Amino acid sequence: MAELGFIGLGIMGKPMAGHLVAAGHTVHVYDVRPEPVKELSTRGARPCRSCKEVGQKSNIIFIMVPDTPDVEAVLFGPDGLAEGLRSGSIVVDMSSISPIATKEFAKKLTAMGVKMLDAPVSGGQVGAENATLSIMVGGPVEVFNEVKPYFERMGKNIVHIGGHGDGQTCKVANQIVVALTIEAVAEALLFASKAGADPVKVRAALLGGFAQSRILELHGERMIHRKFDPGFRIRLHQKDLNLALQAARSLGLSLPNTATAQELFNAVAAQGSSDLDHSAMVLALEKLANHTIKG
Amino acid sequence: MAELGFIGLGIMGKPMAGHLVAAGHTVHVYDVRPEPVKELSTRGARPCRSCKEVGQKSNIIFIMVPDTPDVEAVLFGPDGLAEGLRSGSIVVDMSSISPIATKEFAKKLTAMGVKMLDAPVSGGQVGAENATLSIMVGGPVEVFNEVKPYFERMGKNIVHIGGHGDGQTCKVANQIVVALTIEAVAEALLFASKAGADPVKVRAALLGGFAQSRILELHGERMIHRKFDPGFRIRLHQKDLNLALQAARSLGLSLPNTATAQELFNAVAAQGSSDLDHSAMVLALEKLANHTIKG
Repeated sequence: MAELGFIGLGIMGKPMAGHLVAAGHTVHVYDVRPEPVKELSTRGARPCRSCKEVGQKSNIIFIMVPDTPDVEAVLFGPDGLAEGLRSGSIVVDMSSISPIATKEFAKKLTAMGVKMLDAPVSGGQVGAENATLSIMVGGPVEVFNEVKPYFERMGKNIVHIGGHGDGQTCKVANQIVVALTIEAVAEALLFASKAGADPVKVRAALLGGFAQSRILELHGERMIHRKFDPGFRIRLHQKDLNLALQAARSLGLSLPNTATAQELFNAVAAQGSSDLDHSAMVLALEKLANHTIKG
Repeated sequence: MAELGFIGLGIMGKPMAGHLVAAGHTVHVYDVRPEPVKELSTRGARPCRSCKEVGQKSNIIFIMVPDTPDVEAVLFGPDGLAEGLRSGSIVVDMSSISPIATKEFAKKLTAMGVKMLDAPVSGGQVGAENATLSIMVGGPVEVFNEVKPYFERMGKNIVHIGGHGDGQTCKVANQIVVALTIEAVAEALLFASKAGADPVKVRAALLGGFAQSRILELHGERMIHRKFDPGFRIRLHQKDLNLALQAARSLGLSLPNTATAQELFNAVAAQGSSDLDHSAMVLALEKLANHTIKG
C-alpha cells in the first residue's frame, strides 16, 4: 500500500487530507502552521517537520497551497520536497496555479525520475469537506490511473484532460467562464432594474430560454436578494483571473472581457470587499450606474 | 370573435401570422412587399394595401418588423396604423425594439384610446415556424390576458414581465446575457486551445460544474466544430446590442462587456461575415490571437 504525503492543510487541504486519513491510508502531513498538523495527527496522520521529510517518507505526495510561488517553494525551496523525493515517486499538485509554471515544474521533476500530475479542483470548501470536488487532471494517463483511487476519496467529477499543465489550463478556463458569466448576469439584471423592469421576473423569464446558466440561477438570485456572503471569495477569483491574464500575455492571446472582469473585481476590492462572494462583482457596476438592483 | 391584424410578414412574421390563419382566425395582413401578402391570402388571410387599412378592419393588431424606426413608421407614418385605429383596439408589437421608444409609443396610443403591449420574442425562425417562441410581454395585465390565447398559437414560454416597455427590456437583457456568455465561452476555449489543451475535453469538464450553460453546450460545440451556419445572425445581434448600448447611455448605465462584445461583432462584420451565426464572435478573438481553436 502506498505511503501518502499531504502538504498544505488550509481550509481546502485539511479536509482533503482528512478524507485520506479516514479511509485508513498512511498520510505524512506538513503545513507551515503547526496547528493543523497537530490536529490531523490526533486522527492518525503522521506529522512531519518539513516538505523534505514528507518526500523522504512518502511515494505519492499531494500538494494544496495557495499560489504558484508557494508550490515552487514546496518543491524546490530549502528543505523542499525535491531534497527528499525518491525516484519513482508521484507528486500531485492540487493547487490552482500557472499552467506554464506547472509545465516547467513537471520537466524538472521528470528529470529527477519523479512523476507529476496537476490536479486543480473546483467546488470550494464545501466540496472539500463533502468530498464532492471536481478534479481536472493533467499528466500521463498511467499516472492518473494510479492516483485515481485517492482522487475518488476527495471528489466526484474526476476528469483526465491531457498532458502536464492541462489540468491547470482547464481550471483557468473554468474560472474565465464563471467570472464572465457573472459579469453577463450583472450587466443584464442591472440593465433591467435601471430600465424599471422587475429583475425577479426578468431572471425567471431568461432561465426558460437560451440565456440559461447555473450562474444566472444561483448568482442572479444572490444579486437580487443581496446575499454576498461567501461562497467563493473575490480575492480568490482575482488570483485565478491573474493566472488567466498572465498566461494570456505569455501565450500571445487577448482576453478583453476577462481583463474587464478583473478590473471590476479590483474595484470591489478597493472598497474593502474582497472577502465577499464573487457575485458581488455587481457592486462595481452598480457604483458606476449609481443604481442598486431592486428585487 | 376578434378581427386580427398582422403587419410585417418577413421570416418571423409570415409563419407567426400563418399560425393565426391556420387556427381559423380572420387575419388582415399587410407588408411593404406584395409577395407574402399574396401568399398568406391564398391560405385565407385578408390582404390590405396599407397599415391604415389593417387598423380600420382589425381590433387586435400584431406588428413584427425589424427595428424601432420601422415600428414608428407602421404606427405613426403616412397611411400608418394611427390613421385607421379604432378606440379600444389593441396594438401588440412583437418586434425587438428600444424599450424607451416603446414607452413613448404606448403613451401616444393610450392618449388615442388604444391599448398596447410590447411582446418581443426569442427562438428565431425555427421557433416562429414551430410555434415554440418565448414571448416576453410588457403592458397592462388585463390586456395581456385578452391577447394570451393568440400568443399561445405562436409560442410556448409566454411571460408577463410588467408595464409598458418591460417586455422589450427583458428581451434586451436576454440578448446581453447571450452575447456575453458567447464571449465568455470563446475566451475560455481559445485560452485552452492556445495553451495546448484539448478544447473538447475542457468543454466536457466545464459542463459538469458551475460553468455550465446552454451556450457552453451548444455554441461551445459550434466553436470547436467550426459550424457557423446561422442560427442567429451576427447582424441581428448587433442590432440588439445597439439597443442595449443606446438605452444604457440614456438611462445612465455603464455596460463595459456589452460594449466589447459589440466591438467583436463589428470586427467579424468587418470581415464580411455578419451573416454567420453569433457564435462566430470567436473569429474576432482568434484573429487577435493569431490562433484557431482546434478540436
